[in-house]
Amino acid sequence: MIRLAIDGMGGDLAPKEIVEGTLLALNRFDNIEATIFGDTALMAPYLKEHPRLKVVHAAKFFDMGEKNVGRDTLKMKDASMIMAIQHVKDGLSDAVVSAGPTQVLIFASYFLIRPMKEMSRVAIAPIVPTISGKPAFLLDAGGNIDAKPEHLVDFAVYASVALREVFNVKEPKVGLINIGTEPGKGRDIDVQTYQLLKDHPAIHFYGNLEPKEILDSEADVLLSDGFTANIVMKTMEGTAKAVGAILKREIKRGFFSKLAAGLFLRKALKNFKKSFSQDEVGGALIAGLDKVVIKAHGSSSAYAFSNGIRQAKMMVEKDVIGKVKNALGKS
Amino acid sequence: MIRLAIDGMGGDLAPKEIVEGTLLALNRFDNIEATIFGDTALMAPYLKEHPRLKVVHAAKFFDMGEKNVGRDTLKMKDASMIMAIQHVKDGLSDAVVSAGPTQVLIFASYFLIRPMKEMSRVAIAPIVPTISGKPAFLLDAGGNIDAKPEHLVDFAVYASVALREVFNVKEPKVGLINIGTEPGKGRDIDVQTYQLLKDHPAIHFYGNLEPKEILDSEADVLLSDGFTANIVMKTMEGTAKAVGAILKREIKRGFFSKLAAGLFLRKALKNFKKSFSQDEVGGALIAGLDKVVIKAHGSSSAYAFSNGIRQAKMMVEKDVIGKVKNALGKS
Repeated sequence: MIRLAIDGMGGDLAPKEIVEGTLLALNRFDNIEATIFGDTALMAPYLKEHPRLKVVHAAKFFDMGEKNVGRDTLKMKDASMIMAIQHVKDGLSDAVVSAGPTQVLIFASYFLIRPMKEMSRVAIAPIVPTISGKPAFLLDAGGNIDAKPEHLVDFAVYASVALREVFNVKEPKVGLINIGTEPGKGRDIDVQTYQLLKDHPAIHFYGNLEPKEILDSEADVLLSDGFTANIVMKTMEGTAKAVGAILKREIKRGFFSKLAAGLFLRKALKNFKKSFSQDEVGGALIAGLDKVVIKAHGSSSAYAFSNGIRQAKMMVEKDVIGKVKNALGKS
Repeated sequence: MIRLAIDGMGGDLAPKEIVEGTLLALNRFDNIEATIFGDTALMAPYLKEHPRLKVVHAAKFFDMGEKNVGRDTLKMKDASMIMAIQHVKDGLSDAVVSAGPTQVLIFASYFLIRPMKEMSRVAIAPIVPTISGKPAFLLDAGGNIDAKPEHLVDFAVYASVALREVFNVKEPKVGLINIGTEPGKGRDIDVQTYQLLKDHPAIHFYGNLEPKEILDSEADVLLSDGFTANIVMKTMEGTAKAVGAILKREIKRGFFSKLAAGLFLRKALKNFKKSFSQDEVGGALIAGLDKVVIKAHGSSSAYAFSNGIRQAKMMVEKDVIGKVKNALGKS
């Protein structure tokens, strides 16, 4: 039985979608049990009795806009997210799933669970949608501004193992985000990381990856330092938003707007938005810790959250962390 | 009379669209004269007599895929682009316009024309489309990998003057591309650049700009080092391509596809593509040289190229370089 600790109060649509998503996951997967932490009065309308569900009251929770992290974060011992992380730290659960504020989750799990000894840095690896539909990890999207080449290589190993074990990608290819495809392109960190990836026994190296191909390449792992990958992630978001806005305006202006456009476009844009969301595949990995931590999308629906739980379950079931340790130990 | 040197053979659609675009510009603007350099046999079908047009034969030209630059580049003295740049260097023209390969244009104009003494680096500043439709400069998109904060500030001053003089933006706002909006975010270069921009008399500082807002903010100058801005530019391109592909697929799949979709969508996507092109506004600035150099888009149509010429003409007419020198000298 895989034991999951759920932050019942994290996410824009918490606690409703989180509670319902947890119940959905319990029904979808019969080898999991969940402990959900949150305000029992607020969660009550959505809770149902389930033989594999425990509910634990948490008096507090973090605001979704919370970005300031520090000593006080860890002192919020009665916050739903901290209680869920503590449950894992204490060995009572195998993994945490939270749709709460990203910076808080990274900070708190870093200091409570600690990095695995084979990795000195922690990366955040969201799944990005590609044109082909296969999942790709973008990392480090979380902001290790002073990462070194060897940290990036560790991240690449982690993401490769996770893709193979959880998403059935047989030989995940690691692409190094760069301003040109030729070896030798980029900054010192890029040139050095290129050399390390090329020769690494646990990595299938795609080579340098220009972001104009980033969603349309063979690469499964989209790798860069925390500054650059964060900029890439946010530029994707900004561009997709701009394209959507410009397209809507163009269509409104068009001849056909008064005819089929209303219904037609609403449907197309909705599906499009779905393609660009992480609902189908799960959440972002917090990679590098000694336990599995999954950051579900802030606006997770029940279904999306149940896929975040699925991802956590698979990570534990397939012993991704053990395999990462093994791959890093051997190299 | 403003004298322009035109690379007649640069661009995917050269020489046809370049020659036609030059003739179009001569008809649109009566205070310019042009010297076009290129293979006269290849250009002949599109050339027309014009009192303000001179044609000079150039035996060679650079392939659009040319990326390797070095000593041999400058030895191609009979290449159309080199001849056009040389014409400006010799004081026979006031500005160069080329749709040829970017790296070659930057390299050759850097070594032939030289940077202005107030700036030690040269940046490339493409115009990017924003949701509101106003033009914004993204720079340095060209790859000054080892740029320092003071170089970025020089770039910002140049772009601000150009926006004010050429595009009538009264108080161009400079946004520093960063992973967060708070001061203190980012790498050392970002933190230092933030301080310099904040206090600069010739700059209206917007603050840090997260790329998720990059096409939807008040900022007119989107500033970062050559690595980061190049990554941003290419990520925009890659994302727009992916969004287009996913949207097309979704629409094909949709219920309405057999009805109005064909015509309807073709029109909307075409307009959308146009919004995302630089046709309407001109080309990229090569900023920091002692003369005006405009890089028209590689796939320029005649109309787009004539707007690149318009931009060069305005840069000369409004003495942008003199005003930049003045602004940098005072600071």
